[in-house]
Amino acid sequence: MADTLRDRTAIAGIGATEFSKDSGRTELQLAAECVTAALDDAGLEPGDVDGLCTFTMDTNPPGELLRMIGGKELTFFSQVGFGGGGGAGVVQQAAMAVATGVADVVVCYRAMNERSGARFGQPMHQSRPTPEHLLWSHHTMHGLATPPAFMALAMRRYMHETGATPDDFAHVAIAMRKHAATNPKAWYYQRPITLEDYHASQMVADPLRRADCCQESDGGVALVVVSAERARDLKQPPVLIRAAASGATRGTHAMTNYYRPDISPRDESRVVARQLYAMADLRPADMQVAILYDHFGPALLPALEAFGFCADGEAKDYVKDGAIELGGRLPVNPNGGQLGEAYIHGMNGFAEAVRQLRGTAVNQVTGVEHILATSGNATPTSAMILGRA
Amino acid sequence: MADTLRDRTAIAGIGATEFSKDSGRTELQLAAECVTAALDDAGLEPGDVDGLCTFTMDTNPPGELLRMIGGKELTFFSQVGFGGGGGAGVVQQAAMAVATGVADVVVCYRAMNERSGARFGQPMHQSRPTPEHLLWSHHTMHGLATPPAFMALAMRRYMHETGATPDDFAHVAIAMRKHAATNPKAWYYQRPITLEDYHASQMVADPLRRADCCQESDGGVALVVVSAERARDLKQPPVLIRAAASGATRGTHAMTNYYRPDISPRDESRVVARQLYAMADLRPADMQVAILYDHFGPALLPALEAFGFCADGEAKDYVKDGAIELGGRLPVNPNGGQLGEAYIHGMNGFAEAVRQLRGTAVNQVTGVEHILATSGNATPTSAMILGRA
Repeated sequence: MADTLRDRTAIAGIGATEFSKDSGRTELQLAAECVTAALDDAGLEPGDVDGLCTFTMDTNPPGELLRMIGGKELTFFSQVGFGGGGGAGVVQQAAMAVATGVADVVVCYRAMNERSGARFGQPMHQSRPTPEHLLWSHHTMHGLATPPAFMALAMRRYMHETGATPDDFAHVAIAMRKHAATNPKAWYYQRPITLEDYHASQMVADPLRRADCCQESDGGVALVVVSAERARDLKQPPVLIRAAASGATRGTHAMTNYYRPDISPRDESRVVARQLYAMADLRPADMQVAILYDHFGPALLPALEAFGFCADGEAKDYVKDGAIELGGRLPVNPNGGQLGEAYIHGMNGFAEAVRQLRGTAVNQVTGVEHILATSGNATPTSAMILGRA
Repeated sequence: MADTLRDRTAIAGIGATEFSKDSGRTELQLAAECVTAALDDAGLEPGDVDGLCTFTMDTNPPGELLRMIGGKELTFFSQVGFGGGGGAGVVQQAAMAVATGVADVVVCYRAMNERSGARFGQPMHQSRPTPEHLLWSHHTMHGLATPPAFMALAMRRYMHETGATPDDFAHVAIAMRKHAATNPKAWYYQRPITLEDYHASQMVADPLRRADCCQESDGGVALVVVSAERARDLKQPPVLIRAAASGATRGTHAMTNYYRPDISPRDESRVVARQLYAMADLRPADMQVAILYDHFGPALLPALEAFGFCADGEAKDYVKDGAIELGGRLPVNPNGGQLGEAYIHGMNGFAEAVRQLRGTAVNQVTGVEHILATSGNATPTSAMILGRA
């Protein structure tokens, strides 16, 4: 297995800013703060960094970020597209760079004023039309101009195919808010919701209610990736990258997969799941916790199916009776996820995975050995399996 | 050396559209054409492709491109930033993916209507300000709003430091146009220029004349990267990726490196050169041809210095007497480069490197064993050393 990414690299440090709706400072400042915090957590110096890796949607140039933190030079920089779909892909990039000797210390970062600055929830616009925008012209005229509207159509189809109901979706929102309620860093700290609250929540794009939608947040999160060997000598217990993978199928669009037989957001996730379990030689039953990307709570149901926790159409039964809550059979997003903690394009979920594997999470699950951590579905996507060293 | 990229991958196919000023079709169509041509050249099918990799500035979404060519699914997609600086970085990405088993057949592509569509030579604008644009606010007010203006300041400083003159810069433009004159695919086919023509060329941003500036072009180029082992069984003689590297220093900006001690565009190139020669265990003298990124002809002089072909300040002497022309000591860009052939963000130069190593170039240099191929300098940059298998 020398030619795969299995167990060759580790996450040695995590760092974050506070999560807010108005950071009061630039995105570059947020990036510098979370990167510095992650290096400090790992016991590394800015001068040790030789790789910086982020999302294509991140606005912070690596050279300028390097200057801000007091670094020296870079031998690696890259970006992964598709917003939240690319998050684990960014970590995969770092793992590839370290595994091939391209860089020794790669910091993955994402920092944004996504609430006080450019909000993703607003109808999209761009000064120059691209091929992607030409595709949009097929559906924008029908009112599908925001991520909730894009996803509403896919989730309505999922309901039709599987018999899932709003009450099934409610399990996710209630679980995320329950987890956030005991996490002081979460925006919705001490603010759990009931089933009644869920049904009273404002309809954004039928069937998606406000309680189904992730937050819009300001903040930054960074992760430090080094070789598994080097990680053993650093400050924190290393968290191994057991496997990391990306996937897309023919005609996978960014949240508008309307031109293929199954518009439910499962196809890309299956491509990723297949690679992950083969690479790590693990099964869904080996996971004690899952970090599932909750841009929209209901999207967790097809994710549970695509990643093999249950058969297609059975997630509506799987999530019942607190199964995905703390104490359930598969606690999902113990930090409260992006519905409850903050929306940092999934990077805050990865930081939570690291804490759970270190045993330092505020909502700690006992006996965590392996965690599946996914990125946004319904778009080219990515995921990873992290494990205790 | 198992943990470096040395000799682990190869370029097995190249493909391109025609190069023009008005392609008459979409960028996505250009992308599909050049990718299909590259696969055909390699003797591979669209269904073999599992990785697609490009520039952040490329507008063609990999999922949609996969549909256009008739492919199946992707396990790898990524992008490298900094326009022309990232070109070899895109190939490095492909090499990393293949070397770590993330993908088997990665196609690197760049397709754009950069003349008939969004022209880079126009003053830049963006609907949403980013940290990079905040940096620009320091110099845009002084009229530095286009790439030639950005580079003019750096090259003027280079002249001051090294004593280089317009006559020295002319050697580059004359060589590129001479090479293009015998390349039927070049825009400037059969249109060489003299020193007199050079001095009569319109001043764009002092000291840069029109003859110093790369073209604005429509077109697409693709390269197919597979493992060195697999390449041996394919249709073409494989071209080994002996080494590939990227580099940036603290405060490296995209063509506006005005806030550091040496504003000449050499620092990043040195970071890349150091890695390349160490990885490949080769020296500048081992190169029979160089593909040097000519966004601006004069920028070849500091590139020759940073990549060790001569000492700092001596490139003005190095380029005299036809040294970089066909038949000279180091033929540079035998295809005519981006000044003479076309500006496809340097990807057409990489295709020329492959042809030179296969022995199939129209301006073939004899006995080519190794080629240094660089990407744009004065920005985070990248380069590679290619060699005959």
